[in-house]
Amino acid sequence: MTASIITIGDELLIGQTIDTNSAWMAQQLNGMGIWVQRRVAVGDTREAILDALDAESATADIILITGGLGPTADDITKPTLWEYFGGEMVQHEPTLQRLMQLFESRGLPILQRNIDQALVPDSCTVLLNNWGLAPGMWFEKDGKVFVSMPGVPHEMKGIMQDHVIPRLQEQFQTKAVMHQTLLTSGMGESFVAEKLLQFEAKLPPHIKLAYLPSYGLLKLRLTALGEDKVSTAAELSLLFHEMKDLLAEIVVYDEDIPMGEVLGRLLKEKGKTVGTAESCTGGYIAHNITAVAGSSAYYTGSVVTYSNEMKMKMLGVSAATLEAHGAVSEETVREMVTGALKLLGTDYVIAVSGIMGPDGGSPEKPVGTVWVGAGSAEKMTVVKFRLMYDRERNIQMTAIYAMNELRKLL
Amino acid sequence: MTASIITIGDELLIGQTIDTNSAWMAQQLNGMGIWVQRRVAVGDTREAILDALDAESATADIILITGGLGPTADDITKPTLWEYFGGEMVQHEPTLQRLMQLFESRGLPILQRNIDQALVPDSCTVLLNNWGLAPGMWFEKDGKVFVSMPGVPHEMKGIMQDHVIPRLQEQFQTKAVMHQTLLTSGMGESFVAEKLLQFEAKLPPHIKLAYLPSYGLLKLRLTALGEDKVSTAAELSLLFHEMKDLLAEIVVYDEDIPMGEVLGRLLKEKGKTVGTAESCTGGYIAHNITAVAGSSAYYTGSVVTYSNEMKMKMLGVSAATLEAHGAVSEETVREMVTGALKLLGTDYVIAVSGIMGPDGGSPEKPVGTVWVGAGSAEKMTVVKFRLMYDRERNIQMTAIYAMNELRKLL
Repeated sequence: MTASIITIGDELLIGQTIDTNSAWMAQQLNGMGIWVQRRVAVGDTREAILDALDAESATADIILITGGLGPTADDITKPTLWEYFGGEMVQHEPTLQRLMQLFESRGLPILQRNIDQALVPDSCTVLLNNWGLAPGMWFEKDGKVFVSMPGVPHEMKGIMQDHVIPRLQEQFQTKAVMHQTLLTSGMGESFVAEKLLQFEAKLPPHIKLAYLPSYGLLKLRLTALGEDKVSTAAELSLLFHEMKDLLAEIVVYDEDIPMGEVLGRLLKEKGKTVGTAESCTGGYIAHNITAVAGSSAYYTGSVVTYSNEMKMKMLGVSAATLEAHGAVSEETVREMVTGALKLLGTDYVIAVSGIMGPDGGSPEKPVGTVWVGAGSAEKMTVVKFRLMYDRERNIQMTAIYAMNELRKLL
Repeated sequence: MTASIITIGDELLIGQTIDTNSAWMAQQLNGMGIWVQRRVAVGDTREAILDALDAESATADIILITGGLGPTADDITKPTLWEYFGGEMVQHEPTLQRLMQLFESRGLPILQRNIDQALVPDSCTVLLNNWGLAPGMWFEKDGKVFVSMPGVPHEMKGIMQDHVIPRLQEQFQTKAVMHQTLLTSGMGESFVAEKLLQFEAKLPPHIKLAYLPSYGLLKLRLTALGEDKVSTAAELSLLFHEMKDLLAEIVVYDEDIPMGEVLGRLLKEKGKTVGTAESCTGGYIAHNITAVAGSSAYYTGSVVTYSNEMKMKMLGVSAATLEAHGAVSEETVREMVTGALKLLGTDYVIAVSGIMGPDGGSPEKPVGTVWVGAGSAEKMTVVKFRLMYDRERNIQMTAIYAMNELRKLL
């Protein structure tokens, strides 16, 4: 059972929008044992959409389509699908009701172009959109399923969860596809591959290993394809643990979750709290920690001390230290950790100070130089990194490295 | 002149990786007047790659390919391109030199699989990778250009900037494609469309208007296609300003830049500084502000006060206020603004407190309730929002709304 994803919208082709929908949809389909064979992005033109429908349905069983369903003139997905599948345009009453109620409750006048959003070809099964206005549409043709959904992520997700996933589960019986991912840090892809040479050679053909470098981490994903869920899961689990043992020294976590969540789970387990004192990452580490639901169990607050003045005022870093060693130094980061432990009253603190670029570097401290500290009242690690990326990536990697230093300490 | 982008990698099809490369490449191609007609993601299989090469080169002039060039067994792009374009595998000396130097400087042993990364088919022009190991490869066939690059974003970007963009500019003469984008906030897509009805109707066929809702903002993009850069730019500019005047009351900015940068430019212009006191956004507003290079000109520091205790301790929010109104209240946010102005000594402060979900809501204060404050010693705005998304989006939207409140105040 295979699927293709078609995303429609000029904004995808000029690079104004990063497509996050496809990844989410692919995860959902995979979870049901449906393999996504291709993802295609096309512009808001009739020909491009028709071509994509033909090309993808030639090889895939299920074609998920997002985008181009808005109320404005550039949105032409609906008329194009109407042309492709035929039928009459009819009013979808539940959508019209929802629409009227929504506009009324907001005290807004309803426009013809909004009313038109409730029009659908009668060749489709309508999937009510509980999160927005444009409904989803489920078509079938020559044994293939086509589903059109809005491009707004939370509307697409709502329609997938409310309608598409249950319907696909009902309609198709498929093989089990299972993934297990090991997060590692501290060894390059080639060296890990060398360590796994024998392991990889003996993998059965229905189990595949992929190396996924992700800033600061290397993810190792095992994918198994099997007839039976239980036996496939057991086989996968055995191999996964064998791989994990081979890489014991570099394992970060045995699940593909963000580093903030890895840290959160460890802190929760140990009943400890954490705070941050950030300079160059400007709040990004705190954001990574608080992005996790329930983080208030181990997180109470943070400071961002961007200027030297703030480092002195809020964290008690000494003027002499800043004078002698500069803000980007082991000494300053040590005092930031100590000061933040006192100020925030947490069990652990992560502190960072560095130069993220593009400006601010010097021959002794080039752009990308960063000091990372993690510590408690009892112990402290301070490590220097030299990053080589742009500002955005430097900030992201510093955050990952810093959280990983605390993870090691825990 | 049209292009297609092919991204290769199973991680794209199972949703493990969000494809940010395509958007960046599309922006670069657009800037040169090359229209991206399709983007396709395929898995690490020979057949899928060969099919995509055939299908995309049937309609596009330029085919940019990323991914599948790593040193591990799952990377099969190079052998597949070799099969497609023919030739002999040869050692690329400059890449081998770079590789040896790199491993030597890091004190790492060099492995056969790394040496093999310097092998390339002699049917291509090699594009030296100054940011990693796998070189780029430029092929030509039947008048079409095919370029293969690694999938690691900074390596791809490096090869694009060092080689691909200059070569494409040299080889092709194209029409000018120009975009101008207006950021707006505070009016729904349909209402804006109604306001622009006449404006849209009179747009010449070579100028297109697109509505791009982006959490908390609506972006309006005008795209012009013309023979001549100067006259096209002039025509676009006239229409853009006409549109801007029609929407004066909701205009946020007349360039497609992140809200943190909009704010930064305004602060710099006025010579003012800003700090933040964040509860529910957990450092994300500070991150948005400091993601902008040069933000130290108007930003010195922040606090994240996640717990009530921190709100009292760091910002001096009174226990009585928290007791009477709760942390998510107008009163608390007012005291957070006042306390942070004092603590941080900045001209302006943004403060937020809310419930981002999925838990923590109550009948009176459901998930998504958030109070946003922006103020100086002289004036203060405090506004309540009710968001309806998941935790991640609620945090992002709160940050956008909060920065927009300060923007209005400025």
